[in-house]
Amino acid sequence: MNMKLKKESKDEANKKLDYASSGVDIKRADFIKSKIKELASRTITSGVIEGIGPFSSVLKSESEILLATCDGVGTKILLGLKYKKEKWLGKDLVAMNVNDILAMHGKPKFFLDYIGVNSLDDVDVLGIVEGIVEACKESGCSLVGGETAQMPGFYKRKSVELVGFCIGFADPNSLPKINEVKKGDLILGFPSSGIHSNGFSLIRKLISQKKIKIDSDFDGEKLYNLFLVPTKIYVEDFFKIVERFSFPKASAHITGGGIPGNLSRVIPDGLSAFVEKKVLRDISEKYSRNIFSLLHNFVEERELFRVFNMGIGFAMIYDESTAKKITENFSDVFIVGFIEDFEKEKVLIV
Amino acid sequence: MNMKLKKESKDEANKKLDYASSGVDIKRADFIKSKIKELASRTITSGVIEGIGPFSSVLKSESEILLATCDGVGTKILLGLKYKKEKWLGKDLVAMNVNDILAMHGKPKFFLDYIGVNSLDDVDVLGIVEGIVEACKESGCSLVGGETAQMPGFYKRKSVELVGFCIGFADPNSLPKINEVKKGDLILGFPSSGIHSNGFSLIRKLISQKKIKIDSDFDGEKLYNLFLVPTKIYVEDFFKIVERFSFPKASAHITGGGIPGNLSRVIPDGLSAFVEKKVLRDISEKYSRNIFSLLHNFVEERELFRVFNMGIGFAMIYDESTAKKITENFSDVFIVGFIEDFEKEKVLIV
Repeated sequence: MNMKLKKESKDEANKKLDYASSGVDIKRADFIKSKIKELASRTITSGVIEGIGPFSSVLKSESEILLATCDGVGTKILLGLKYKKEKWLGKDLVAMNVNDILAMHGKPKFFLDYIGVNSLDDVDVLGIVEGIVEACKESGCSLVGGETAQMPGFYKRKSVELVGFCIGFADPNSLPKINEVKKGDLILGFPSSGIHSNGFSLIRKLISQKKIKIDSDFDGEKLYNLFLVPTKIYVEDFFKIVERFSFPKASAHITGGGIPGNLSRVIPDGLSAFVEKKVLRDISEKYSRNIFSLLHNFVEERELFRVFNMGIGFAMIYDESTAKKITENFSDVFIVGFIEDFEKEKVLIV
Repeated sequence: MNMKLKKESKDEANKKLDYASSGVDIKRADFIKSKIKELASRTITSGVIEGIGPFSSVLKSESEILLATCDGVGTKILLGLKYKKEKWLGKDLVAMNVNDILAMHGKPKFFLDYIGVNSLDDVDVLGIVEGIVEACKESGCSLVGGETAQMPGFYKRKSVELVGFCIGFADPNSLPKINEVKKGDLILGFPSSGIHSNGFSLIRKLISQKKIKIDSDFDGEKLYNLFLVPTKIYVEDFFKIVERFSFPKASAHITGGGIPGNLSRVIPDGLSAFVEKKVLRDISEKYSRNIFSLLHNFVEERELFRVFNMGIGFAMIYDESTAKKITENFSDVFIVGFIEDFEKEKVLIV
């Protein structure tokens, strides 16, 4: 070898490096992992042959159709950590993924999480996992695996990245049928709990510009609580409707891109979804303290709609008669718009 | 609402914020996403009903047993970006996951990637995806989904986080049978290509302490190339052996924790794997330029073995006769140890 090694005295040479001194604490990691395994065991229902432990999780396939998704929480993490809402962030992580499975009309079944940190000492990782576990239970998912990565020098101190993966099962006959969406169909919306997990870079910008004072009160509540409330999980509500009526023709999880960016994905060419602003405002007033009206003071309306959910976190398209029956039978779902012949834009906010 | 809004002049009020000004460029994201979709389409084989595009990927289940895994690349990313090895990092991401599926004796089938950045402008995201695509092809995986997250203020500039998620299928009769591991069985090892994707926090510490000069030459090659060479994918080699002979009794992907930490996971109580140092050294000399000898100058041997793969990236346990026949028929697999009665430690480096 032709590499020059730095000369060391005998004493220095004896002080050889170990992994802990490079910022990676294997013992702490082992402790956290054993706690995670214990917490995860509370979520295990059917179909898990081996969960956390082996090189990969061993699972039973319950349908010929698998659904798979991957998503994170975005920069909501930064605010969430600041206000010690680790548990809420864990819930957001699961919600972002299971609602995506739902949008393809499947049942979320297995969840895996990736947690990346600078150090396991300065972030409440177990608080996050508690939130993940609660949300897994709420959505019928088993937490079957994941990775907790200590990356000193990569992540900032007191920082955590969260990435989730979800596997769901669907009936091949129940997958969305976008080509069956017709003029006259109605759009149903489930209310959002607030901002959910998108648009936080914009919110942080407003905070840094001191346009929004996040520690102040809004409608009798601390603003940070209203911003950080976890993304609503729609699994139970969705399947209650499906069991009593039928699967929607198509569905959309309203995330980054807002209603225009997401609902447009399930509108056939030549048709357009007309979504009613006034209805959304009423829903937001009732379910999310009209938090979007506050943002409207600083952000153009068109941009607001491209970034935030504006009141509904999940949309479904049904024929008119079924849609009306559903709203007569379920109180927390609303007709927010209708399908029209229109070539120019797939979603119009009217 | 009782929140005080900051008073603005009319001009200021008109300059309302949009999402791009908060550091999130939706147009750039759409461009990158369409390129990723195009690249991903090259990996699609059977079983993909809908890949990248819908809210979740729609896949065909090909077995009653699913395997699922989630892993990242760790702080190797930092060095990889510095030396512009984005493509190699993409390969590492896939390798870390598919080798975990392999360790449970399954065929990796579907891959999803999460790419987190500060900005899409200062990291070669498409280079990474090219590496992912190449490695997916090599391992028989289809790239079916993922998430590219712009998180300004969260990630450092010119930084990228990579998380992978893999679904595989296994035959229920071929899953590892740890309880069949017996005294006298032999341990086969596939050579590693080098450091693979673990222990880079330690390596970076050695570099920062100037003990290792990463720009220097080692055995006729730049040291950074030797450190960064992508993790070997063992899918093809493994199934060549399996098709000609049989599945191993058990297997281990040698990652963080090294041979002791990973091989121990498949050794039954009361037995121990004796792994021969001299054999590992010979393998490393032939396949990875004996890169571990360099590290031995600065790190205690025991610690080295707990952090690095030390020459083999994948281990399999077979009965003696099968193991010998395999090494007679395949040139790139080696007997690296044997199973003994021993209560005290599950893996001994001898």
